[in-house]
Amino acid sequence: MKIPVGYRYASTYAGIRKEKKDDLALILSETPASAAAMFTRNRVQAAPVVLAREHLRVSRGVARAILVNAGNANCATRSGGRVALASCRAVAKLLKTPVAGVLPASTGVIGVELDSKLIVDALPRLFDRLSEDGFPDAARAILTTDQVPKMAFGEVPLRTGVVHIAGMTKGSGMIHPRMATTLGFIMTDAAIAPRLLQPMLAAACERSYHRLSVDGDTSTNDTLILLANGASGIRPSAKELLVFQEVLSWVMEDLAEKLARDGEGARKLVTIHVLGAKDDEAATQIARAIANSPLVKTAIAGSDPNWGRILSAAGISGTEFDPGAVDIFMQHVRVCHRGVADGFSERELKQKLDARECLIRFVIGGGGKGESRFWTCDLTENYVHINASYRT
Amino acid sequence: MKIPVGYRYASTYAGIRKEKKDDLALILSETPASAAAMFTRNRVQAAPVVLAREHLRVSRGVARAILVNAGNANCATRSGGRVALASCRAVAKLLKTPVAGVLPASTGVIGVELDSKLIVDALPRLFDRLSEDGFPDAARAILTTDQVPKMAFGEVPLRTGVVHIAGMTKGSGMIHPRMATTLGFIMTDAAIAPRLLQPMLAAACERSYHRLSVDGDTSTNDTLILLANGASGIRPSAKELLVFQEVLSWVMEDLAEKLARDGEGARKLVTIHVLGAKDDEAATQIARAIANSPLVKTAIAGSDPNWGRILSAAGISGTEFDPGAVDIFMQHVRVCHRGVADGFSERELKQKLDARECLIRFVIGGGGKGESRFWTCDLTENYVHINASYRT
Repeated sequence: MKIPVGYRYASTYAGIRKEKKDDLALILSETPASAAAMFTRNRVQAAPVVLAREHLRVSRGVARAILVNAGNANCATRSGGRVALASCRAVAKLLKTPVAGVLPASTGVIGVELDSKLIVDALPRLFDRLSEDGFPDAARAILTTDQVPKMAFGEVPLRTGVVHIAGMTKGSGMIHPRMATTLGFIMTDAAIAPRLLQPMLAAACERSYHRLSVDGDTSTNDTLILLANGASGIRPSAKELLVFQEVLSWVMEDLAEKLARDGEGARKLVTIHVLGAKDDEAATQIARAIANSPLVKTAIAGSDPNWGRILSAAGISGTEFDPGAVDIFMQHVRVCHRGVADGFSERELKQKLDARECLIRFVIGGGGKGESRFWTCDLTENYVHINASYRT
Repeated sequence: MKIPVGYRYASTYAGIRKEKKDDLALILSETPASAAAMFTRNRVQAAPVVLAREHLRVSRGVARAILVNAGNANCATRSGGRVALASCRAVAKLLKTPVAGVLPASTGVIGVELDSKLIVDALPRLFDRLSEDGFPDAARAILTTDQVPKMAFGEVPLRTGVVHIAGMTKGSGMIHPRMATTLGFIMTDAAIAPRLLQPMLAAACERSYHRLSVDGDTSTNDTLILLANGASGIRPSAKELLVFQEVLSWVMEDLAEKLARDGEGARKLVTIHVLGAKDDEAATQIARAIANSPLVKTAIAGSDPNWGRILSAAGISGTEFDPGAVDIFMQHVRVCHRGVADGFSERELKQKLDARECLIRFVIGGGGKGESRFWTCDLTENYVHINASYRT
């Protein structure tokens, strides 16, 4: 699939993380792009989050570049604000653009001073490498504990031609729904005004990043940015924007699913599908409670069809439902019918649960129309292992 | 320390759990006792929870016996209500007491039918064994994944003599604050009317069980019962009740701490002490967010002084505070001062964190009077191991 035109990407190793793997990435739009963003709702906000928000305010939603580093969150440090600003200024100078056109994002350890000199010195190298084909390199440079880079693509056929969407994201711990979780950057070559872009991002987020949980922890650095540079020369009509919205949601759902699949220590992608709730919000609340239950997630890790834990987790979601009207399916096998155990072969189901993908369907009888699809992963010993030794 | 007079205890193996370890316990008061209770707030409620609540309503807070089984939660089953009632009836018959004087409680796997015959057939054996010294046996029989029985004792010197309090509790997964978590039974020989007993239990719970988290999951069976049989012949005055309340809280704090220390897979007891919040409720909210963060708990497991995760977890507590005014101490070492890293020897602190007890102090500057002490444990590979294979 083609990626959007009018963007260039680069990555390099700036010496921020100990391991010698690229840790600095630049996403550049050749012309000023409309920009929308969502940020963490954590009360503790990293310096790049504060600055990116400020830049979008000053520029009224227009940006040329996104500068991302991994290996250091630039959060809870003395110099955080100065470092973020100095880095953006250096990019702006090389681009001959106002500093507000540069959006910073960081991920990594909290509370360790970040040396802006590392970034500023690496910039000439980064600019030299800028290319349209640099997309996967940039997607790789923003990773921390992720096993694989995460990219998703979409195209939207419109009356006057095709516009493209491409997204990259990183996980894979400190991931919790209800905010623009982790880092995600989505580019399109459609022409869309900033004031239209923000609600589209929010709506797509509701169906994707907000329905994702790895461990229930929320980062101080969560940043999700959508750029629309119009380089395709195509400006979707109001009707066409509805189609664009749909494809944007698909791309972001794809990214969210990839985040869950590569959750820290995860062996399995778990998709939770709740049906029959009184509305979508109630369905999402139930799905989230199931997704956040460590007991459900360890049972999945052990291929144990322990549906009682699923019912119990739903029971503390804060949403009203009749437990006696609930059917639960695991891998399409009905394990619970009207709130009590259904006859099923435990041995066969255990085998089915050994698959890399696990589907839980939670169906409330009574004809409610609320529905939600939610992504998480199993909780394995390796999650603990990774996080007990993250900094050492 | 002496245990309260006028109670007898017994345990036996009724064949409910696979492993041949006592799984049925009876707590008997020789005379009708005032009874107070708190139950799970899970929307899915096990049959014994529903029946115990009903019995307390009918008896107006008077009980003779508590019948507890481990190995089966008697929840989400077809026969749950019938089984709980049949078991209580059989006890009541042997005691020649109204059925409402028997309070049932169950713990174990959800969704598996429990055979009431196992319980009824074991009752004569159980009654034969009743003795004042059976307290530790009963405390052992109610355990599931716990490593050790959990008991706590207190005495209250009053004007006309000493009254005694003794409690037993079990963990050690599906434990989350904000409700009477897990099973706990507290006996006293003081004479206290039921209408006074319930608020005392609730107040003590606020300071103990509600400040405890192992994994953030809430059971369908949580039951906490306080019996006061008056066998000491001492009825505390209104003023003396304040002293009694204090000792009751200590005993329950002791039980809560023991629950945390023996959390599933736990190697370390983690005590979180929040100071300087605007009120106690806000302090508890911050402490709870820290206690529920898997990233904080895995860091403790790895003896990693990763205070950034503590600050970040506090940031999603939903409570307002100024991150720039926060000091964080681990094992009495200040690791974060006014929101940024403090100078400390990482190597030395790592060694201190290898201890079996970890103390986190989170201090918000600015003179707020709110304070909370909260208990949890580290999150280890073993938690995952235990819960991935719970039923097999």
